[in-house]
Amino acid sequence: MTRDQVYNFAAGPSVLPESALKTAQAELLNFRGSGMSVMEISHRSALFQEVFDSAQAKLRRLMNVPDTHEILLLQGGATTQFAAIPMNLIEGGCADYAVTGNFSAKAAEEAEKYGSVHIACSTADTGHDRIPTQAELRFSPEAKYFYYCANNTVYGTEWQYTPSAPSALVSDMSSDILSREVDVSKFGLIYAGAQKNMSPAGLTVVIVDKALAGRELPCTPKILSYKTMIETGSLLNTPPCWCIYMLDLTLDWVEKQGGVKAMDELRHARADRIYDFLDGSRLFTARALPGSRSYMNITFRTPSAELDAEFVKEAASRGLVNLKGHKVTGGLRASLYNAMPVEGAQALLDFMKEFEAKHHG
Amino acid sequence: MTRDQVYNFAAGPSVLPESALKTAQAELLNFRGSGMSVMEISHRSALFQEVFDSAQAKLRRLMNVPDTHEILLLQGGATTQFAAIPMNLIEGGCADYAVTGNFSAKAAEEAEKYGSVHIACSTADTGHDRIPTQAELRFSPEAKYFYYCANNTVYGTEWQYTPSAPSALVSDMSSDILSREVDVSKFGLIYAGAQKNMSPAGLTVVIVDKALAGRELPCTPKILSYKTMIETGSLLNTPPCWCIYMLDLTLDWVEKQGGVKAMDELRHARADRIYDFLDGSRLFTARALPGSRSYMNITFRTPSAELDAEFVKEAASRGLVNLKGHKVTGGLRASLYNAMPVEGAQALLDFMKEFEAKHHG
Repeated sequence: MTRDQVYNFAAGPSVLPESALKTAQAELLNFRGSGMSVMEISHRSALFQEVFDSAQAKLRRLMNVPDTHEILLLQGGATTQFAAIPMNLIEGGCADYAVTGNFSAKAAEEAEKYGSVHIACSTADTGHDRIPTQAELRFSPEAKYFYYCANNTVYGTEWQYTPSAPSALVSDMSSDILSREVDVSKFGLIYAGAQKNMSPAGLTVVIVDKALAGRELPCTPKILSYKTMIETGSLLNTPPCWCIYMLDLTLDWVEKQGGVKAMDELRHARADRIYDFLDGSRLFTARALPGSRSYMNITFRTPSAELDAEFVKEAASRGLVNLKGHKVTGGLRASLYNAMPVEGAQALLDFMKEFEAKHHG
Repeated sequence: MTRDQVYNFAAGPSVLPESALKTAQAELLNFRGSGMSVMEISHRSALFQEVFDSAQAKLRRLMNVPDTHEILLLQGGATTQFAAIPMNLIEGGCADYAVTGNFSAKAAEEAEKYGSVHIACSTADTGHDRIPTQAELRFSPEAKYFYYCANNTVYGTEWQYTPSAPSALVSDMSSDILSREVDVSKFGLIYAGAQKNMSPAGLTVVIVDKALAGRELPCTPKILSYKTMIETGSLLNTPPCWCIYMLDLTLDWVEKQGGVKAMDELRHARADRIYDFLDGSRLFTARALPGSRSYMNITFRTPSAELDAEFVKEAASRGLVNLKGHKVTGGLRASLYNAMPVEGAQALLDFMKEFEAKHHG
């Protein structure tokens, strides 16, 4: 297939802005007249530092990150942060975790190695089909931080509000970063694996309140110390240069679209009609409850696993690819990250209507 | 400058095979007819697994890795392995470290967090200008492993032999992996940050004897557990897909050149004449002692820092770039990794001769 014929609904790694890919392609062998690829230049060179600074500055502008917070560009993915967060912040004490899905459960499990985990709430009893209200959250008075995952990729739920907590607010925003406005000053730490909304896999963005740095447990590897990474400008060792370059190009696209406000409008333009259709459908059912639904990952299903499989197969033949649900939930899932064009969501909706007309007995 | 006009002597990230870059460029927007970039496809897709398996299989063939050893493709760089190695192997006990340069010193320092470090030898007293002999190595009878850095990028020295040790042999081969034949079966663990000889920055190759897995300290993050990474085929979380793809393309080039045997011939073809010239030079001095010299990083200098700076500047104006020595040593450094063409080394040698003729009073 050609690129024009495909809409990629993968949960991550996932679609990137075409303009970013085209720029990367054009200058792949010779970056800015250096005679070298951006993949070949030293991370300590002025040329690379320019890329790094540009990406960092764009992120600061786009998310309105205050000076109290540092933006780190790291390796390791969310799974690394599952350990790094307690290693840096728990101080051998206790932390509150909201368990609303697959990745928050994993984060809580990993934190148990480094301190005492208090479950502030869990939605496991109803298959993680919703997000708890503020009133449902139960905080431990000794907690050093409260951890939640802003969007649950597997289950298709998303926090529609920023929770209040008596301790530092820590959030995994891998799935919905830059898709809507967030008041960063309220957070002790925000992090995101970049492979859903910002760059290819291999980069993790951590935005951390500098006042929280310097509390590492003695067993914390130097590479996982926020303090060290703040002090070295994320350059303790060689960073994932290509991903940082792609981040810069992607953020350029976000700015040109109109920034986070434009991304916020886009997420509505993509998802609202699909949810409306699902709620009135005679064939499909939305998995997540109204009020808790994700704009980034729509989880749904037909009445049978066989029909789900047929949907995935037929959609793919028309260039609507990667619509199979996560193995934990089964069913179907359409991931609509920032770089997914509205036309892609519309093409999916058109196909869903057609499939419904054909299969509703 | 154009690509034809530049030879890049950077110590890493550094030159990549042009054929690999050209393939990456050609298929950047549409990978193997998928209509997607390789940066956009799921790491759980059959299409990506093909890339992963291909890279891993090539590495196994090229290095003749026995079935007893697993090849892991990870994130985090050497600095992450400085912690991961003791966290997985030291078992709260002791380990022997050979300190022959910058990175082995850092590795030993990090290991002290997790156990007791015994310095098997140090060449610090002579500014790390040489590699110790086997007879100079002093092992601790309780050590769980012996760690050494095969090539010291900063100082320009390289182990010309594989040391014998009473415990598991662990080696950082970031700088000289694939440049010469190594009997992998002798090693408990080999690792390499891939950004010098194998791929862009953001990938770390770890080759580990499976019999050593499963001895992690309780504080070891899941992401740093060799056992977990062996069990998940390096896919506990999203791997650095683009780097793995570039690794596959680079290894393809290595195979087409004739494999590690051809790389071994190339390193001699690049470095031998330069060292010969340095030993007879009336202007330049080689830093490392004969018998300990690196084929990958040639460290040298003129009689003054001013003349060193002039050399760097004039070389750059002719497209011979990144010849400044590391800040720790000063002087000059030419890194000649696997993808550096012999013509690049020859161009450098020609310029050195010309510079000598001009400046030798």
